[in-house]
Amino acid sequence: MTTTYDGIDRQDGSITRGGYSNQYIVDTHFAYHLPTGLDPASVVPLLCAGVTTWSPLRQWDVTGKTIDIVGLGGLGHMAVKFAHALGAQVTLFSTSEDKLADAKALGADAAILSTDEAQMAVQASRFDFILDTVSAHHPLDPYLRSLKLDGTLCCLDIPKALDFSPYLLTTGRRQIASSGVGGTLETQEMLDFCSKYKIAADVEVIAAADINHGFERLERKEVRYRLVIDISTLNAPARNPA
Amino acid sequence: MTTTYDGIDRQDGSITRGGYSNQYIVDTHFAYHLPTGLDPASVVPLLCAGVTTWSPLRQWDVTGKTIDIVGLGGLGHMAVKFAHALGAQVTLFSTSEDKLADAKALGADAAILSTDEAQMAVQASRFDFILDTVSAHHPLDPYLRSLKLDGTLCCLDIPKALDFSPYLLTTGRRQIASSGVGGTLETQEMLDFCSKYKIAADVEVIAAADINHGFERLERKEVRYRLVIDISTLNAPARNPA
Repeated sequence: MTTTYDGIDRQDGSITRGGYSNQYIVDTHFAYHLPTGLDPASVVPLLCAGVTTWSPLRQWDVTGKTIDIVGLGGLGHMAVKFAHALGAQVTLFSTSEDKLADAKALGADAAILSTDEAQMAVQASRFDFILDTVSAHHPLDPYLRSLKLDGTLCCLDIPKALDFSPYLLTTGRRQIASSGVGGTLETQEMLDFCSKYKIAADVEVIAAADINHGFERLERKEVRYRLVIDISTLNAPARNPA
Repeated sequence: MTTTYDGIDRQDGSITRGGYSNQYIVDTHFAYHLPTGLDPASVVPLLCAGVTTWSPLRQWDVTGKTIDIVGLGGLGHMAVKFAHALGAQVTLFSTSEDKLADAKALGADAAILSTDEAQMAVQASRFDFILDTVSAHHPLDPYLRSLKLDGTLCCLDIPKALDFSPYLLTTGRRQIASSGVGGTLETQEMLDFCSKYKIAADVEVIAAADINHGFERLERKEVRYRLVIDISTLNAPARNPA
Protein backbone atom coordinates (compact mmCIF):
# COMPACT_ATOMS: atom_id res chain seq x y z
CA MET A 1 0.00 0.00 0.00
CA THR A 2 1.17 3.51 -0.86
CA THR A 3 -0.38 5.95 1.59
CA THR A 4 -1.79 9.22 0.29
CA TYR A 5 0.19 11.61 2.47
CA ASP A 6 3.78 11.21 3.63
CA GLY A 7 4.09 7.76 2.02
CA ILE A 8 6.93 6.58 -0.23
CA ASP A 9 6.12 6.61 -3.95
CA ARG A 10 7.06 3.14 -5.20
CA GLN A 11 8.18 4.45 -8.62
CA ASP A 12 10.61 7.21 -7.73
CA GLY A 13 10.91 7.01 -3.94
CA SER A 14 9.61 10.55 -3.43
CA ILE A 15 7.27 11.56 -0.61
CA THR A 16 3.56 11.37 -1.49
CA ARG A 17 1.62 14.61 -1.04
CA GLY A 18 -1.92 13.56 -1.91
CA GLY A 19 -4.16 16.49 -2.76
CA TYR A 20 -1.31 18.94 -2.14
CA SER A 21 0.50 17.71 -5.26
CA ASN A 22 0.92 19.85 -8.37
CA GLN A 23 0.59 16.78 -10.57
CA TYR A 24 -0.19 13.11 -10.08
CA ILE A 25 0.47 10.06 -12.27
CA VAL A 26 -1.79 7.17 -11.32
CA ASP A 27 -2.79 3.80 -12.75
CA THR A 28 -6.25 4.17 -14.39
CA HIS A 29 -7.41 1.34 -12.11
CA PHE A 30 -7.15 3.77 -9.18
CA ALA A 31 -8.56 6.87 -10.93
CA TYR A 32 -12.21 7.97 -10.53
CA HIS A 33 -14.62 9.38 -13.07
CA LEU A 34 -15.63 12.70 -11.54
CA PRO A 35 -19.25 13.82 -11.69
CA THR A 36 -20.22 16.05 -14.59
CA GLY A 37 -22.02 19.40 -14.55
CA LEU A 38 -20.65 20.45 -11.17
CA ASP A 39 -18.10 23.07 -10.10
CA PRO A 40 -14.83 21.09 -9.78
CA ALA A 41 -13.98 22.86 -6.50
CA SER A 42 -17.24 21.65 -4.95
CA VAL A 43 -16.43 18.10 -6.07
CA VAL A 44 -13.11 17.96 -4.22
CA PRO A 45 -14.53 17.22 -0.72
CA LEU A 46 -16.58 14.34 -2.14
CA LEU A 47 -13.38 12.27 -2.14
CA CYS A 48 -13.15 12.54 1.65
CA ALA A 49 -16.17 14.02 3.49
CA GLY A 50 -18.37 12.66 0.70
CA VAL A 51 -17.42 9.01 0.75
CA THR A 52 -16.95 9.01 4.55
CA THR A 53 -20.64 9.84 5.00
CA TRP A 54 -21.89 7.99 1.89
CA SER A 55 -20.37 4.68 2.99
CA PRO A 56 -22.26 4.29 6.31
CA LEU A 57 -25.50 5.71 4.85
CA ARG A 58 -25.36 2.95 2.24
CA GLN A 59 -24.07 0.26 4.62
CA TRP A 60 -27.02 0.85 6.97
CA ASP A 61 -29.31 1.38 3.95
CA VAL A 62 -31.10 4.54 5.12
CA THR A 63 -33.53 4.70 2.19
CA GLY A 64 -37.06 4.94 3.59
CA LYS A 65 -35.82 5.06 7.18
CA THR A 66 -36.08 7.70 9.88
CA ILE A 67 -32.55 8.83 10.58
CA ASP A 68 -30.63 11.52 12.35
CA ILE A 69 -27.40 13.32 11.49
CA VAL A 70 -25.42 14.78 14.41
CA GLY A 71 -23.44 17.92 13.58
CA LEU A 72 -23.52 20.18 10.52
CA GLY A 73 -19.92 20.63 9.43
CA GLY A 74 -17.92 19.37 6.46
CA LEU A 75 -19.11 15.79 7.02
CA GLY A 76 -22.57 16.59 8.37
CA HIS A 77 -23.66 18.83 5.51
CA MET A 78 -22.75 16.09 3.01
CA ALA A 79 -24.59 13.50 5.12
CA VAL A 80 -27.77 15.61 5.10
CA LYS A 81 -27.62 16.04 1.31
CA PHE A 82 -26.99 12.34 0.67
CA ALA A 83 -29.55 11.04 3.18
CA HIS A 84 -32.24 13.32 1.77
CA ALA A 85 -31.45 12.30 -1.82
CA LEU A 86 -31.41 8.61 -0.78
CA GLY A 87 -34.99 8.96 0.45
CA ALA A 88 -34.48 8.96 4.22
CA GLN A 89 -36.59 11.02 6.63
CA VAL A 90 -33.77 13.23 7.98
CA THR A 91 -33.46 15.08 11.28
CA LEU A 92 -30.37 17.13 12.12
CA PHE A 93 -29.11 17.52 15.70
CA SER A 94 -26.85 20.50 16.27
CA THR A 95 -25.56 22.42 19.28
CA SER A 96 -25.52 25.60 17.12
CA GLU A 97 -28.89 27.33 16.78
CA ASP A 98 -27.66 29.23 13.72
CA LYS A 99 -27.19 25.98 11.77
CA LEU A 100 -30.78 24.76 12.08
CA ALA A 101 -32.10 26.79 9.14
CA ASP A 102 -29.09 25.75 7.06
CA ALA A 103 -29.86 22.08 7.74
CA LYS A 104 -33.39 22.45 6.39
CA ALA A 105 -32.12 24.31 3.33
CA LEU A 106 -29.73 21.41 2.69
CA GLY A 107 -32.54 18.86 2.79
CA ALA A 108 -33.23 17.98 6.44
CA ASP A 109 -36.91 17.46 7.27
CA ALA A 110 -36.33 18.71 10.81
CA ALA A 111 -33.51 20.33 12.76
CA ILE A 112 -33.27 20.14 16.56
CA LEU A 113 -31.11 22.02 19.02
CA SER A 114 -29.58 19.06 20.87
CA THR A 115 -28.89 21.13 23.99
CA ASP A 116 -32.65 21.70 24.39
CA GLU A 117 -33.69 18.91 26.78
CA ALA A 118 -37.42 19.40 26.20
CA GLN A 119 -37.02 19.03 22.44
CA MET A 120 -34.67 16.06 22.87
CA ALA A 121 -37.16 14.27 25.17
CA VAL A 122 -39.65 14.25 22.27
CA GLN A 123 -37.04 12.50 20.11
CA ALA A 124 -36.82 9.41 22.37
CA SER A 125 -36.84 6.05 20.52
CA ARG A 126 -37.54 7.76 17.16
CA PHE A 127 -34.64 6.87 14.86
CA ASP A 128 -33.57 3.75 13.00
CA PHE A 129 -30.05 5.08 12.49
CA ILE A 130 -27.92 7.99 13.65
CA LEU A 131 -24.76 9.19 11.92
CA ASP A 132 -22.65 11.18 14.36
CA THR A 133 -20.22 13.42 12.46
CA VAL A 134 -18.90 15.44 15.42
CA SER A 135 -15.16 15.15 16.00
CA ALA A 136 -14.99 16.81 19.44
CA HIS A 137 -15.45 14.56 22.50
CA HIS A 138 -19.12 14.59 23.50
CA PRO A 139 -21.63 12.49 25.48
CA LEU A 140 -23.54 10.01 23.33
CA ASP A 141 -26.41 9.17 25.72
CA PRO A 142 -28.83 11.83 24.36
CA TYR A 143 -28.39 10.31 20.91
CA LEU A 144 -28.59 6.68 22.08
CA ARG A 145 -31.89 7.45 23.81
CA SER A 146 -33.31 8.73 20.54
CA LEU A 147 -32.66 5.37 18.80
CA LYS A 148 -35.45 2.83 18.30
CA LEU A 149 -35.21 -0.87 19.15
CA ASP A 150 -32.28 -2.35 17.18
CA GLY A 151 -31.16 1.12 16.08
CA THR A 152 -27.50 1.89 15.36
CA LEU A 153 -25.42 4.92 16.32
CA CYS A 154 -22.48 5.19 13.93
CA CYS A 155 -19.71 7.51 15.16
CA LEU A 156 -17.37 8.78 12.46
CA ASP A 157 -15.07 10.33 15.03
CA ILE A 158 -12.26 8.15 16.42
CA PRO A 159 -11.61 9.45 19.95
CA LYS A 160 -9.70 7.57 22.63
CA ALA A 161 -12.92 6.58 24.36
CA LEU A 162 -16.63 6.82 23.64
CA ASP A 163 -18.75 8.41 26.37
CA PHE A 164 -21.99 6.43 26.79
CA SER A 165 -23.99 4.36 29.27
CA PRO A 166 -23.95 0.64 28.32
CA TYR A 167 -27.45 0.08 29.76
CA LEU A 168 -28.78 2.18 26.85
CA LEU A 169 -27.47 -0.56 24.56
CA THR A 170 -29.16 -3.28 26.65
CA THR A 171 -32.53 -1.52 26.85
CA GLY A 172 -33.58 -1.27 23.23
CA ARG A 173 -30.84 -3.62 21.93
CA ARG A 174 -29.10 -0.60 20.43
CA GLN A 175 -25.72 -0.76 18.74
CA ILE A 176 -22.69 1.47 18.54
CA ALA A 177 -20.64 1.30 15.38
CA SER A 178 -18.08 3.27 13.43
CA SER A 179 -16.92 3.47 9.85
CA GLY A 180 -13.75 4.44 8.00
CA VAL A 181 -13.53 6.49 4.82
CA GLY A 182 -14.72 4.09 2.12
CA GLY A 183 -13.46 1.83 -0.67
CA THR A 184 -12.86 2.51 -4.35
CA LEU A 185 -16.09 0.90 -5.58
CA GLU A 186 -18.34 2.87 -3.24
CA THR A 187 -16.39 6.06 -3.96
CA GLN A 188 -17.23 5.72 -7.68
CA GLU A 189 -20.82 4.80 -6.79
CA MET A 190 -21.05 8.00 -4.71
CA LEU A 191 -19.55 10.14 -7.49
CA ASP A 192 -22.05 8.71 -10.01
CA PHE A 193 -24.88 9.45 -7.57
CA CYS A 194 -23.62 13.04 -7.24
CA SER A 195 -23.55 13.38 -11.01
CA LYS A 196 -27.14 12.13 -11.27
CA TYR A 197 -28.56 14.22 -8.42
CA LYS A 198 -26.24 17.24 -8.86
CA ILE A 199 -24.89 16.96 -5.33
CA ALA A 200 -21.59 18.49 -4.25
CA ALA A 201 -20.09 20.13 -1.20
CA ASP A 202 -20.69 23.76 -0.20
CA VAL A 203 -17.20 25.21 -0.41
CA GLU A 204 -15.11 28.33 -0.16
CA VAL A 205 -12.06 28.40 -2.43
CA ILE A 206 -8.95 29.92 -0.86
CA ALA A 207 -5.36 30.51 -1.93
CA ALA A 208 -2.60 28.37 -0.39
CA ALA A 209 -1.26 31.49 1.35
CA ASP A 210 -4.55 31.84 3.27
CA ILE A 211 -4.41 28.42 4.96
CA ASN A 212 -3.60 29.70 8.44
CA HIS A 213 -6.40 32.24 8.31
CA GLY A 214 -8.67 29.45 7.05
CA PHE A 215 -7.80 27.25 10.04
CA GLU A 216 -8.69 30.07 12.40
CA ARG A 217 -12.06 30.47 10.70
CA LEU A 218 -12.61 26.68 10.94
CA GLU A 219 -11.95 26.83 14.67
CA ARG A 220 -14.48 29.66 14.98
CA LYS A 221 -16.99 27.47 13.04
CA GLU A 222 -17.34 30.19 10.39
CA VAL A 223 -16.69 27.98 7.34
CA ARG A 224 -19.76 26.89 5.35
CA TYR A 225 -18.79 24.01 4.92
CA ARG A 226 -15.43 23.12 3.43
CA LEU A 227 -12.37 25.12 2.46
CA VAL A 228 -10.81 24.12 -0.86
CA ILE A 229 -7.26 25.24 -1.59
CA ASP A 230 -6.60 26.31 -5.18
CA ILE A 231 -3.38 24.33 -5.74
CA SER A 232 -2.41 26.58 -8.68
CA THR A 233 -1.61 29.19 -5.99
CA LEU A 234 0.79 26.83 -4.17
CA ASN A 235 3.97 28.48 -5.44
CA ALA A 236 2.68 32.04 -5.16
CA PRO A 237 4.40 34.19 -2.53
CA ALA A 238 2.63 34.20 0.87
CA ARG A 239 0.53 37.30 1.54
CA ASN A 240 1.74 37.58 5.11
CA PRO A 241 5.33 36.24 5.10
CA ALA A 242 6.67 35.56 8.59
CA MET B 1 -46.27 -4.10 34.66
CA THR B 2 -45.91 -6.36 37.68
CA THR B 3 -42.23 -7.05 38.30
CA THR B 4 -41.12 -10.58 39.14
CA TYR B 5 -39.31 -9.84 42.40
CA ASP B 6 -40.28 -7.28 45.03
CA GLY B 7 -43.18 -5.98 42.94
CA ILE B 8 -46.75 -5.43 44.13
CA ASP B 9 -49.21 -8.16 43.15
CA ARG B 10 -52.15 -6.34 41.57
CA GLN B 11 -54.70 -8.86 42.88
CA ASP B 12 -53.93 -9.00 46.58
CA GLY B 13 -51.25 -6.31 47.08
CA SER B 14 -48.71 -8.81 48.38
CA ILE B 15 -45.00 -8.67 47.49
CA THR B 16 -44.04 -10.74 44.42
CA ARG B 17 -41.35 -13.36 45.03
CA GLY B 18 -40.83 -14.79 41.54
CA GLY B 19 -39.12 -18.16 41.59
CA TYR B 20 -38.89 -18.10 45.39
CA SER B 21 -42.67 -18.50 45.67
CA ASN B 22 -44.30 -21.66 47.02
CA GLN B 23 -47.17 -21.25 44.59
CA TYR B 24 -48.09 -18.94 41.77
CA ILE B 25 -51.42 -18.11 40.11
CA VAL B 26 -50.92 -16.62 36.65
CA ASP B 27 -53.06 -15.83 33.61
CA THR B 28 -52.53 -18.61 31.01
CA HIS B 29 -51.51 -15.86 28.60
CA PHE B 30 -48.29 -15.43 30.60
CA ALA B 31 -47.62 -19.14 31.29
CA TYR B 32 -45.13 -21.17 29.23
CA HIS B 33 -45.33 -24.74 28.01
CA LEU B 34 -42.22 -26.32 29.49
CA PRO B 35 -40.14 -28.72 27.41
CA THR B 36 -40.93 -32.40 27.77
CA GLY B 37 -38.59 -35.30 28.51
CA LEU B 38 -36.16 -33.22 30.56
CA ASP B 39 -35.36 -33.08 34.28
CA PRO B 40 -37.52 -30.18 35.58
CA ALA B 41 -34.61 -28.86 37.68
CA SER B 42 -32.45 -28.53 34.57
CA VAL B 43 -35.25 -26.64 32.83
CA VAL B 44 -35.44 -23.90 35.49
CA PRO B 45 -32.43 -21.85 34.29
CA LEU B 46 -33.84 -21.80 30.74
CA LEU B 47 -36.24 -19.10 31.89
CA CYS B 48 -33.33 -16.75 32.61
CA ALA B 49 -29.85 -17.86 31.41
CA GLY B 50 -31.58 -19.73 28.59
CA VAL B 51 -33.60 -16.95 27.02
CA THR B 52 -30.91 -14.34 27.76
CA THR B 53 -28.48 -16.21 25.48
CA TRP B 54 -31.10 -17.54 23.05
CA SER B 55 -32.43 -14.08 22.24
CA PRO B 56 -29.17 -12.57 20.86
CA LEU B 57 -28.16 -15.82 19.12
CA ARG B 58 -31.46 -15.65 17.23
CA GLN B 59 -31.42 -11.87 16.76
CA TRP B 60 -27.99 -12.05 15.09
CA ASP B 61 -29.01 -15.32 13.38
CA VAL B 62 -25.90 -17.38 14.11
CA THR B 63 -26.94 -20.41 12.05
CA GLY B 64 -24.12 -21.22 9.61
CA LYS B 65 -21.89 -18.49 11.01
CA THR B 66 -18.52 -18.57 12.76
CA ILE B 67 -19.12 -17.29 16.25
CA ASP B 68 -17.47 -17.03 19.61
CA ILE B 69 -18.83 -17.29 23.14
CA VAL B 70 -16.85 -15.49 25.87
CA GLY B 71 -17.01 -17.14 29.30
CA LEU B 72 -18.33 -20.54 30.34
CA GLY B 73 -20.64 -19.93 33.31
CA GLY B 74 -24.40 -20.14 33.74
CA LEU B 75 -25.02 -18.03 30.62
CA GLY B 76 -22.00 -19.19 28.60
CA HIS B 77 -22.70 -22.91 28.88
CA MET B 78 -26.25 -22.36 27.61
CA ALA B 79 -24.94 -20.18 24.77
CA VAL B 80 -22.54 -22.94 23.67
CA LYS B 81 -25.31 -25.55 23.67
CA PHE B 82 -27.75 -23.33 21.75
CA ALA B 83 -25.22 -22.05 19.22
CA HIS B 84 -24.03 -25.57 18.45
CA ALA B 85 -27.61 -26.85 18.06
CA LEU B 86 -28.46 -23.84 15.86
CA GLY B 87 -25.70 -24.86 13.44
CA ALA B 88 -23.05 -22.26 14.22
CA GLN B 89 -19.31 -22.96 14.15
CA VAL B 90 -18.61 -22.26 17.84
CA THR B 91 -15.39 -21.22 19.58
CA LEU B 92 -15.26 -20.61 23.33
CA PHE B 93 -12.93 -18.04 24.90
CA SER B 94 -12.21 -18.58 28.57
CA THR B 95 -9.66 -17.33 31.07
CA SER B 96 -9.93 -20.69 32.90
CA GLU B 97 -7.86 -23.48 31.38
CA ASP B 98 -9.94 -26.07 33.22
CA LYS B 99 -13.09 -25.05 31.32
CA LEU B 100 -11.73 -25.66 27.82
CA ALA B 101 -12.46 -29.40 27.80
CA ASP B 102 -15.93 -28.72 29.24
CA ALA B 103 -16.67 -26.30 26.41
CA LYS B 104 -15.91 -28.95 23.79
CA ALA B 105 -18.01 -31.52 25.65
CA LEU B 106 -20.91 -29.04 25.59
CA GLY B 107 -20.65 -28.60 21.81
CA ALA B 108 -17.93 -26.02 21.08
CA ASP B 109 -15.81 -26.78 18.02
CA ALA B 110 -12.81 -25.08 19.61
CA ALA B 111 -11.90 -23.62 23.00
CA ILE B 112 -9.19 -20.99 23.43
CA LEU B 113 -7.46 -19.68 26.53
CA SER B 114 -8.06 -15.95 26.02
CA THR B 115 -5.06 -15.00 28.17
CA ASP B 116 -2.75 -16.77 25.69
CA GLU B 117 -1.69 -13.94 23.35
CA ALA B 118 -0.18 -16.26 20.75
CA GLN B 119 -3.42 -18.22 20.45
CA MET B 120 -5.49 -15.03 20.40
CA ALA B 121 -3.36 -13.55 17.59
CA VAL B 122 -4.44 -16.45 15.38
CA GLN B 123 -8.09 -15.56 16.06
CA ALA B 124 -7.82 -12.07 14.50
CA SER B 125 -10.73 -11.12 12.18
CA ARG B 126 -12.23 -14.63 12.39
CA PHE B 127 -15.72 -14.24 13.83
CA ASP B 128 -19.04 -12.96 12.50
CA PHE B 129 -20.47 -12.60 15.98
CA ILE B 130 -19.28 -12.77 19.58
CA LEU B 131 -21.54 -13.22 22.60
CA ASP B 132 -19.75 -12.01 25.72
CA THR B 133 -21.36 -13.56 28.81
CA VAL B 134 -18.80 -12.40 31.40
CA SER B 135 -20.21 -10.19 34.15
CA ALA B 136 -16.91 -8.99 35.66
CA HIS B 137 -15.34 -5.82 34.20
CA HIS B 138 -12.85 -6.82 31.49
CA PRO B 139 -11.11 -5.35 28.43
CA LEU B 140 -12.98 -5.98 25.17
CA ASP B 141 -10.19 -5.20 22.68
CA PRO B 142 -8.92 -8.81 22.37
CA TYR B 143 -12.45 -9.85 21.39
CA LEU B 144 -13.08 -6.90 19.05
CA ARG B 145 -9.87 -7.74 17.18
CA SER B 146 -11.16 -11.26 16.58
CA LEU B 147 -14.29 -9.93 14.79
CA LYS B 148 -14.51 -9.85 11.00
CA LEU B 149 -15.61 -6.86 8.92
CA ASP B 150 -19.13 -5.88 10.05
CA GLY B 151 -18.96 -8.28 12.99
CA THR B 152 -20.87 -7.62 16.21
CA LEU B 153 -19.74 -8.02 19.82
CA CYS B 154 -22.83 -8.41 22.02
CA CYS B 155 -22.14 -7.87 25.74
CA LEU B 156 -24.74 -9.35 28.08
CA ASP B 157 -23.15 -7.68 31.07
CA ILE B 158 -24.34 -4.17 31.98
CA PRO B 159 -21.35 -2.49 33.66
CA LYS B 160 -21.00 1.24 34.19
CA ALA B 161 -18.63 1.55 31.26
CA LEU B 162 -17.36 -0.71 28.49
CA ASP B 163 -13.57 -0.92 28.14
CA PHE B 164 -12.63 -0.83 24.45
CA SER B 165 -10.71 1.17 21.83
CA PRO B 166 -13.10 2.94 19.42
CA TYR B 167 -10.62 2.67 16.52
CA LEU B 168 -11.31 -1.09 16.54
CA LEU B 169 -14.89 -0.22 15.58
CA THR B 170 -13.72 2.07 12.77
CA THR B 171 -11.22 -0.40 11.31
CA GLY B 172 -13.42 -3.31 10.33
CA ARG B 173 -16.71 -1.43 10.80
CA ARG B 174 -17.34 -3.53 13.90
CA GLN B 175 -20.27 -3.01 16.23
CA ILE B 176 -20.84 -3.22 19.95
CA ALA B 177 -24.29 -4.21 21.10
CA SER B 178 -26.09 -5.55 24.13
CA SER B 179 -29.30 -7.43 24.79
CA GLY B 180 -31.76 -7.82 27.66
CA VAL B 181 -33.39 -11.04 28.81
CA GLY B 182 -35.97 -11.77 26.12
CA GLY B 183 -39.68 -11.54 25.38
CA THR B 184 -42.49 -14.05 25.90
CA LEU B 185 -42.66 -15.23 22.28
CA GLU B 186 -38.95 -15.97 22.03
CA THR B 187 -39.00 -17.61 25.47
CA GLN B 188 -41.59 -20.11 24.25
CA GLU B 189 -39.66 -20.55 20.99
CA MET B 190 -36.54 -21.36 23.03
CA LEU B 191 -38.43 -23.84 25.25
CA ASP B 192 -39.84 -25.60 22.19
CA PHE B 193 -36.33 -25.78 20.73
CA CYS B 194 -35.08 -27.31 23.99
CA SER B 195 -37.84 -29.89 23.88
CA LYS B 196 -36.93 -30.83 20.32
CA TYR B 197 -33.15 -30.97 20.83
CA LYS B 198 -33.22 -32.16 24.47
CA ILE B 199 -31.28 -29.15 25.69
CA ALA B 200 -31.30 -28.01 29.31
CA ALA B 201 -28.92 -26.45 31.80
CA ASP B 202 -26.27 -28.37 33.72
CA VAL B 203 -27.41 -27.90 37.29
CA GLU B 204 -26.79 -28.83 40.90
CA VAL B 205 -29.92 -28.97 43.06
CA ILE B 206 -29.48 -27.59 46.57
CA ALA B 207 -31.71 -27.08 49.60
CA ALA B 208 -32.78 -23.56 50.55
CA ALA B 209 -30.69 -23.84 53.72
CA ASP B 210 -27.53 -24.25 51.60
CA ILE B 211 -27.82 -20.95 49.73
CA ASN B 212 -24.96 -19.19 51.52
CA HIS B 213 -22.64 -22.12 50.94
CA GLY B 214 -23.77 -22.14 47.32
CA PHE B 215 -22.86 -18.45 46.91
CA GLU B 216 -19.38 -19.14 48.25
CA ARG B 217 -18.96 -21.95 45.72
CA LEU B 218 -20.18 -19.63 42.93
CA GLU B 219 -17.55 -17.07 43.92
CA ARG B 220 -14.89 -19.78 43.78
CA LYS B 221 -16.20 -20.71 40.27
CA GLU B 222 -16.85 -24.26 41.43
CA VAL B 223 -20.46 -24.53 40.23
CA ARG B 224 -21.06 -26.44 36.98
CA TYR B 225 -23.10 -24.45 35.87
CA ARG B 226 -26.20 -23.37 37.72
CA LEU B 227 -27.49 -23.91 41.25
CA VAL B 228 -31.19 -24.71 41.47
CA ILE B 229 -32.91 -24.35 44.85
CA ASP B 230 -35.49 -27.01 45.66
CA ILE B 231 -38.29 -24.72 46.83
CA SER B 232 -39.99 -27.58 48.69
CA THR B 233 -37.16 -27.18 51.23
CA LEU B 234 -37.93 -23.48 51.77
CA ASN B 235 -39.66 -23.97 55.13
CA ALA B 236 -37.26 -26.62 56.41
CA PRO B 237 -35.16 -25.54 59.39
CA ALA B 238 -31.73 -24.15 58.40
CA ARG B 239 -28.89 -26.61 58.90
CA ASN B 240 -26.66 -24.00 60.48
CA PRO B 241 -28.99 -21.63 62.36
CA ALA B 242 -27.39 -18.35 63.39
